[in-house]
Amino acid sequence: MIDELRAVLGDAAVLTGAEIPRKNCSDWSKLPDIEPLALVRPATTEEVAHVLRLCNRYGQAVTPQGGLTGLVGGARPSPSTLALSLERLTGVEQVDARTATLTARAGTTLETVQRAADDAGLLFALDIGSRGSCTLGGNLATNAGGNRVLRYGMARDLTLGLEVVLADGTILSSMNTMVKNNTGLDLKQLFIGTEGTLGVITRAVVRLHSKPAGMLNAFCRCADFSAVLALLASAQTQLADTVSSFEVMWPSFYDLVITRLPQLRRPLASGPGLYCLLEATAADLAADGARFEAFLSQSLERGMLTDAVIAQSQREAGEFWAIRGAGSEYPRILGEINSFDISFRRDDIGRVVNRLESELAARWPGIHALTYGHVGDGNIHLIVNLPGVTTQPKEEISDLVYGVVREFQGSISGEHGIGTRKLNYLSNSRSAEELAFMRRVKRAVDPGNLLNPGKVLPAPETGE
Amino acid sequence: MIDELRAVLGDAAVLTGAEIPRKNCSDWSKLPDIEPLALVRPATTEEVAHVLRLCNRYGQAVTPQGGLTGLVGGARPSPSTLALSLERLTGVEQVDARTATLTARAGTTLETVQRAADDAGLLFALDIGSRGSCTLGGNLATNAGGNRVLRYGMARDLTLGLEVVLADGTILSSMNTMVKNNTGLDLKQLFIGTEGTLGVITRAVVRLHSKPAGMLNAFCRCADFSAVLALLASAQTQLADTVSSFEVMWPSFYDLVITRLPQLRRPLASGPGLYCLLEATAADLAADGARFEAFLSQSLERGMLTDAVIAQSQREAGEFWAIRGAGSEYPRILGEINSFDISFRRDDIGRVVNRLESELAARWPGIHALTYGHVGDGNIHLIVNLPGVTTQPKEEISDLVYGVVREFQGSISGEHGIGTRKLNYLSNSRSAEELAFMRRVKRAVDPGNLLNPGKVLPAPETGE
Repeated sequence: MIDELRAVLGDAAVLTGAEIPRKNCSDWSKLPDIEPLALVRPATTEEVAHVLRLCNRYGQAVTPQGGLTGLVGGARPSPSTLALSLERLTGVEQVDARTATLTARAGTTLETVQRAADDAGLLFALDIGSRGSCTLGGNLATNAGGNRVLRYGMARDLTLGLEVVLADGTILSSMNTMVKNNTGLDLKQLFIGTEGTLGVITRAVVRLHSKPAGMLNAFCRCADFSAVLALLASAQTQLADTVSSFEVMWPSFYDLVITRLPQLRRPLASGPGLYCLLEATAADLAADGARFEAFLSQSLERGMLTDAVIAQSQREAGEFWAIRGAGSEYPRILGEINSFDISFRRDDIGRVVNRLESELAARWPGIHALTYGHVGDGNIHLIVNLPGVTTQPKEEISDLVYGVVREFQGSISGEHGIGTRKLNYLSNSRSAEELAFMRRVKRAVDPGNLLNPGKVLPAPETGE
Repeated sequence: MIDELRAVLGDAAVLTGAEIPRKNCSDWSKLPDIEPLALVRPATTEEVAHVLRLCNRYGQAVTPQGGLTGLVGGARPSPSTLALSLERLTGVEQVDARTATLTARAGTTLETVQRAADDAGLLFALDIGSRGSCTLGGNLATNAGGNRVLRYGMARDLTLGLEVVLADGTILSSMNTMVKNNTGLDLKQLFIGTEGTLGVITRAVVRLHSKPAGMLNAFCRCADFSAVLALLASAQTQLADTVSSFEVMWPSFYDLVITRLPQLRRPLASGPGLYCLLEATAADLAADGARFEAFLSQSLERGMLTDAVIAQSQREAGEFWAIRGAGSEYPRILGEINSFDISFRRDDIGRVVNRLESELAARWPGIHALTYGHVGDGNIHLIVNLPGVTTQPKEEISDLVYGVVREFQGSISGEHGIGTRKLNYLSNSRSAEELAFMRRVKRAVDPGNLLNPGKVLPAPETGE
């Protein structure tokens, strides 16, 4: 099979053994490396189809790979799978400013897509920290979220059309460019967020948005979570849905990062309550800036917030966001961490965080449990570290956290996906009927279980 | 089977023969009545599950029915199917203002859902003309669109969670309330827009939006389609994506309705160019009204529009929309009509309409071909009538129109769906691979072909 792959793709596109770069043996999940049987790097959709036809003939399983920035092991090879990297299938094919759409190949980095949109005077609204490395195909396969979901939606909401190669090598082209297209099953939905288990995304048409004249940012303090929700609802009404981010940081998070990271500037003194970073887009910087300021003054008068600072410059806005984005610094501050990406009904979040922080502290006195996240979207991140131990009790911590997720009918994954890391907890968020239905679809679309086996869906219970 | 249904649901919920109301024998498609084997009207999800379990056991096919306002025959019984009406499964279960979500049963009318949201100080943004009769379940099963898709999306985009009963009677509950939930296949997507062919929607969780303080409306004239697109792009940038509708009327439409319907007030004299109805939401009526006016003045100076009137009152805005919505009057003006709901890349629309209007006129001199629609979403409606003939050449007209759709890679259905009316044209918008994939999913999810057989998917070509 390797010989046949070489014959089709050329020797340089098929790597084995020591030729395989380490990066292709895992992803940013930090799970241990697994060397794939081989690494293939097709450069066209036709080549991807060739690879999958061959694999189908040989019953060879495949792990699709994008930028390898996932946090749950979705792109990490399973034992004896062929790693299928889309890294050579790159390029923005078209930016159409008049229809506000962009067409790109799966291996194009998010940053390249953003730049191409920007050069055309438009905005590709998806944005996540790994933008320089992650790829559009991976963004769609994992239904990436990020900081502006509140305003622009998830990757799913930004996708109009997809081209996918199925397990048998069939090219399924649904490169729709239309917002309204009710012609039966919306095929792209099956491939978005299923982490390459139903097909390999090769190209996509995405929606672009108008580019704001600028961004307005405020760093606020609210007395409690009820005030946080009131502030958000009020901002969405009074700022006419221009609110693009609404990030909340609990004191557990803010006090630690602001104390331990001297490079961060402290916009508000530590004190009681919660910290919010509110961002809105401006079409007219002067007029919208004045409205933003008036909204904040009024919110202060009404008691929805107790203190606020408005960014007076790009630089200052960047300083606010540096606090929120201090995530990459956690391992340096805390050592080994256990991180969670969980979602809830928006108004459950205050209680959930209190429960999680207090249960963790009761069970492991002195534990660090830092909470922050995209509260506007119901999504929070929790970083846990037990200081002074050589081996973190990762499984026990996960059991506790995902137990609370189950109790509140939350989601064990807001935006990072399932991969292998969360496989055993999927039933905390999905019913037996849902899992059985997903398996039924998987069997129909990939009957040989050749696409990213062992990911997303746990093995069925005996007897199912 | 009928006896067993009566035993489970009670006699009043199972009607046969002359007891079956005429309305349940077709829908607004005006296709000839087909009397179903029986009409069942379950009042709970459990009862729907009972009905489908029984039907599954007897191999009895079912046609789900909502408000019966569809235009393509999707809810019209097929010969010997059981009509399963959701009309008794009604009620808004919960409106949660803090999380901006609403939970309702499938048979609840759209208007009832809108009112419940409004009573809670929020907006359910889906709006279509049949709001008083159509049901939420039908809206989702057909992925309804309407006038505000540009701003708020289709029914799909407004749906967070669904409860569905599968062909074998399994209740698949995915009543998610979270914006971010990446836990594998997004099950609801399979049931939205597939017209009851994969499952029967029984309940849903939908997103609500903040309620605007008011609406700003302008009736404009643009010199040509290029100016129309420039006006739209500029409006979306300068009005900060508050643009909620962008409707265009070609002279073929405007001149006819404004001349023949004396109750309509003429906002602009007939003249060269195209007519646009621009609507934006206002968070602050004074400030946003001033910005709206400034935008229009500037657009006039820049030549993007040649004339415009801003509605000075609710009443005046209503008069603008009465012109756009004169659709219900067509049969009265024109007699029997052939109507189309087609989508294109936004910047193809100018050429498409010229092609359609000129080809129709060349083939049938004197033909009425009225074009208008949701250009902001790439979706237009075309109303065709050949005056002075007793039998409209419907098939020839459809062949011509859908041939142009195929050539421009457009969609034969922007928002109305496929039902049975467009079945034979589906391949003009979908590839053989797409159709085969849809059939594969259908077979996996409804192996007995019991759910709405004969709808959406044409019978496969021999040998497939």
